[in-house]
Amino acid sequence: MKVLFIGANGKVGRQFADIMKDHPTINERAMIRNPEQQAFFDERGIETVLLDLSKVSVDDLAAVAAGMDAVIFSAGAGGKGLDKIFTVDLDGAVKAMEAAEKAGVKRFVMVSTFRTGRQEMDKQNDLRYYTIGKHYADEWLKTRTDLDWTIVHPGILTDEAGTGQVKVGMGNEIAEISRQDVARVLVAVLEHDSTIGKEFEVLAGDVAVDEAVQSV
Amino acid sequence: MKVLFIGANGKVGRQFADIMKDHPTINERAMIRNPEQQAFFDERGIETVLLDLSKVSVDDLAAVAAGMDAVIFSAGAGGKGLDKIFTVDLDGAVKAMEAAEKAGVKRFVMVSTFRTGRQEMDKQNDLRYYTIGKHYADEWLKTRTDLDWTIVHPGILTDEAGTGQVKVGMGNEIAEISRQDVARVLVAVLEHDSTIGKEFEVLAGDVAVDEAVQSV
Repeated sequence: MKVLFIGANGKVGRQFADIMKDHPTINERAMIRNPEQQAFFDERGIETVLLDLSKVSVDDLAAVAAGMDAVIFSAGAGGKGLDKIFTVDLDGAVKAMEAAEKAGVKRFVMVSTFRTGRQEMDKQNDLRYYTIGKHYADEWLKTRTDLDWTIVHPGILTDEAGTGQVKVGMGNEIAEISRQDVARVLVAVLEHDSTIGKEFEVLAGDVAVDEAVQSV
Repeated sequence: MKVLFIGANGKVGRQFADIMKDHPTINERAMIRNPEQQAFFDERGIETVLLDLSKVSVDDLAAVAAGMDAVIFSAGAGGKGLDKIFTVDLDGAVKAMEAAEKAGVKRFVMVSTFRTGRQEMDKQNDLRYYTIGKHYADEWLKTRTDLDWTIVHPGILTDEAGTGQVKVGMGNEIAEISRQDVARVLVAVLEHDSTIGKEFEVLAGDVAVDEAVQSV
């Protein structure tokens, strides 16, 4: 299976690349913005494409998605300014969906945020802009595309080593999860088509990733 | 007919209020943010409600929409910062739609921007954030609600006196239109249910407003 990873140089993306290095059946095409980010992927034998999601056209993005079996969207504007939430998290995500459809790639896996509902969007804090951007991107994926989508809602991301064990479902209290375990969940999502049309929260837990993902 | 005007103190909103002062069949409820804005509406015999769209809950907004026959959404973040585009133009608009549905108000008239398509969203300029916000609000109205919607796409707004004559349609070259004529168009839209489910550009032109609006 070939997967285009959008946001490959993010912290989750780098954990995913570390898994890809030795993965027997999944090949990654890493979409990155900066040539300086390339060495990390070269070292792991992972193909890279250089594109700025906030500037690329849908056509150019479709050309990069062509021939892939899946797209993972994990680009994130975390802390990079409200302008990037418009052009990356919201409209960049929708461009990625349009590109996938144009390229005939059916499978689309979205890395969302923990909660994206009305209650979170109404909170009078600085996180709400990000939440609003992610909400409308997720909604577009679910209702305006014919893609085989899965939406993953991770808890509070940490850089600690993962345990390979998680908790999945919806309506959980927020808790931490390591980025390494999120990356493992993304791999498992690609491996299990039973996750198509589903969205779920993922937190540190006590169920093996593969088993947990199959249960959603 | 009773209409809740959201963004009533905007420049288009004030032109609308000037028409409402003497209108025989339409009564406005003006939603404004600041008590200092109230005198303008008091002088014209127009009821006001004080609410901040970026902070109000859907329930509180629905309470204000209750008993109305229509909602006009003309709140705009023009120049007020990217945060307000998230919470007013995009999510504020969707909250207004949710509130209208909750209150059983079917008719919803959106004042959009001239063009909101992919080409405009991809332009590498500072306007694109506003365009992206308006695009996703318009799309929500068209595809995610059961409202009787009309979307008006005005050209470059001016403060000159209107002529009462406009050009409507889609795919026009951008040109100017006075805010007074946009306000007249909004009145005509309320008066003609043939505009339900339609969107159209409006520019200065040579067809009387009422006739032009009936032709869309």
